Amino acid sequence: MNASSDTNTTTATTPATSPVTVIGLGLMGSALAAALLDAGHPTTVWNRSPEKAKPLADRGAQVAATPADALAASDLVLACVLDHDALHAVLGPLAATGGLAGKSLVNLTTGTPEQAEEMARWAASHGADYLDGGIMTTPPGVGSPEMMFLYSGSEAVFAAHRDTLAALGDPLHLGTEPGLASLYDAALLGLMWAAFTGWLHGTALVTSRGTSAADFTRVALRWLNGAVSGFVSTYAPQVDAGRYPGDDATVDVQIAAIGHLIHAAEARGVDNALPELLKATMERAAAAGHGGDSYASVIEVLRGDR
Amino acid sequence: MNASSDTNTTTATTPATSPVTVIGLGLMGSALAAALLDAGHPTTVWNRSPEKAKPLADRGAQVAATPADALAASDLVLACVLDHDALHAVLGPLAATGGLAGKSLVNLTTGTPEQAEEMARWAASHGADYLDGGIMTTPPGVGSPEMMFLYSGSEAVFAAHRDTLAALGDPLHLGTEPGLASLYDAALLGLMWAAFTGWLHGTALVTSRGTSAADFTRVALRWLNGAVSGFVSTYAPQVDAGRYPGDDATVDVQIAAIGHLIHAAEARGVDNALPELLKATMERAAAAGHGGDSYASVIEVLRGDR
Ligand SMILES: NC(=O)c1ccc[n+]([C@@H]2O[C@H](COP(=O)([O-])OP(=O)(O)OC[C@H]3O[C@@H](n4cnc5c(N)ncnc54)[C@H](OP(=O)(O)O)[C@@H]3O)[C@@H](O)[C@H]2O)c1
Ligand SMILES: NC(=O)c1ccc[n+]([C@@H]2O[C@H](COP(=O)([O-])OP(=O)(O)OC[C@H]3O[C@@H](n4cnc5c(N)ncnc54)[C@H](OP(=O)(O)O)[C@@H]3O)[C@@H](O)[C@H]2O)c1
Repeated sequence: MNASSDTNTTTATTPATSPVTVIGLGLMGSALAAALLDAGHPTTVWNRSPEKAKPLADRGAQVAATPADALAASDLVLACVLDHDALHAVLGPLAATGGLAGKSLVNLTTGTPEQAEEMARWAASHGADYLDGGIMTTPPGVGSPEMMFLYSGSEAVFAAHRDTLAALGDPLHLGTEPGLASLYDAALLGLMWAAFTGWLHGTALVTSRGTSAADFTRVALRWLNGAVSGFVSTYAPQVDAGRYPGDDATVDVQIAAIGHLIHAAEARGVDNALPELLKATMERAAAAGHGGDSYASVIEVLRGDR
Repeated sequence: MNASSDTNTTTATTPATSPVTVIGLGLMGSALAAALLDAGHPTTVWNRSPEKAKPLADRGAQVAATPADALAASDLVLACVLDHDALHAVLGPLAATGGLAGKSLVNLTTGTPEQAEEMARWAASHGADYLDGGIMTTPPGVGSPEMMFLYSGSEAVFAAHRDTLAALGDPLHLGTEPGLASLYDAALLGLMWAAFTGWLHGTALVTSRGTSAADFTRVALRWLNGAVSGFVSTYAPQVDAGRYPGDDATVDVQIAAIGHLIHAAEARGVDNALPELLKATMERAAAAGHGGDSYASVIEVLRGDR
């Protein structure tokens, strides 16, 4: 895979004046269309409930009366609707009449890797090139070059429209397997929910003593972005090597330390379901012979097939 | 609290030549003593098993024959042994003979907030000033100004010895309650284990497709340190205000999205205990009326007393 924004492709990319169509104007689709308009692209939009197109029309968007008209307006079509079923509901009738032929379809609707693969096959069978995408931000973050937009599937579509996609956020092409962007999306959201919940648990703990969440969070973010990220960087190659030297902190040491957390939370009436699960997971790793290994060895008990 | 390293104290701090004693020369105590020696401090060390003092003696440390000799050598005494019981085992006999009187005791042994409070009372009763500490790095990180050393308890000890403590890492004084550093330590480790496990779960997911852990981790760290940290910064003041506007992403939306993760993990034989717990926690928040609120509202179900 190529998880870097500086792909040295030699393919000519489209100019900022190339037309784009956006299907779906919920919170996210509206943000995508607005960012394209801001970047100067002639932008055609369509939404099931037409009133959501109004603010974009005021900013210069062409409002298509039907999905067929929307697709006819641009070779590059971005779709961002609620889910896979909604996408089929909109595009299905068009495929039957040849409306997808020759189009570059970029699907930014969240779904499973399997749904992305199914869409790629379906698009190919109707003459469209397919790129699947995962948006790693919320609508206010759209348009910021800091925010990642993950893509997988057609490299030709990515290369041809890279500059246009860069108006939405930093475009990363993960590989040609269409399901990769969805897989990364799910994996990254899982990391986010785990980090959110760990942070909220810690916040519940310290705020029980009168410290403010804002004070704790400044320290917590420095910890997460500094030392914790450093440990993760050390552990990633251990996972690839399948060997987990416990040089400084072993699973056994972490099991001992998590007892302090559970004790402190219990004393303050804070729910311990998350630390208890983490402890049980570490204990499974220790029972599998990884007590003297680093925390990275916990992956062995998460992988069912090993 | 004052979680900032630039306390504008006017108290004169000790020069780099001020003597320091280190009690306990395990992996961590040895790293502490080495950093003090590197910074030019006359350093006296003691360890139960005397052979661990050898490498430090070679670097110029004074090796004390007894804990009493070690304490007599310096006003500033850092202790870093296995646990609370070990600390009492070493210091208990000295207190009885007045060896602690007038000392500044900095306890870097990991423990619970309650143990820190008990130690502070115990030290005071024997004439010592007490500062409790939490080391937010592993031994190889000791000495780096990037790494946080959290302190709580006596502000006078912190102010007088701030420059000496800065030889170990960036010293942050959290407040005068002795238990605060331990409480933060537990809370931050909880965040670390949650983030580790979320990252390993995502890594198990993507590596099942042949992507390397190193490739995924580059994207995961950018996500964690960028967008996710941004969300957390937005949520912290929501927690302090007790109001959680779900402007861009609501708990209900996250509950829908975590289904994709659980599905993708199931399809790849990856253990789903963590995502299932996170989903159940979100569902408890939704059931408590927070479905339309931001993820920060999950703190309400973690706090038992609300
Ligand atoms: N919001 C975020 O922070 C975020 C972040 C990353 C990814 N995403 C993904 O982006 C996609 C859209 O999210 P959103 O936040 O824009 O959601 P939203 O505000 O709820 O908008 C949903 C969109 O889907 C359309 N839709 C739903 N069912 C349809 C159907 N049967 N036929 C045609 N159109 C239908 C809606 O049309 P109507 O207006 O007519 O109802 C609307 O345009 C989702 O897959 C989401 O997971 C969102
Ligand atoms: N290592 C880390 O990454 C890390 C990070 C943050 C905090 N800490 C904390 O730092 C402290 C020390 O950790 P460490 O990594 O140095 O552990 P360690 O390598 O296992 O060393 C333990 C130390 O405690 C001493 N000790 C144990 N029981 C004793 C007793 N009854 N009487 C006297 N001394 C006793 C040991 O002496 P002997 O040599 O005689 O056995 C040794 O000096 C712990 O509280 C740990 O939680 C460690």
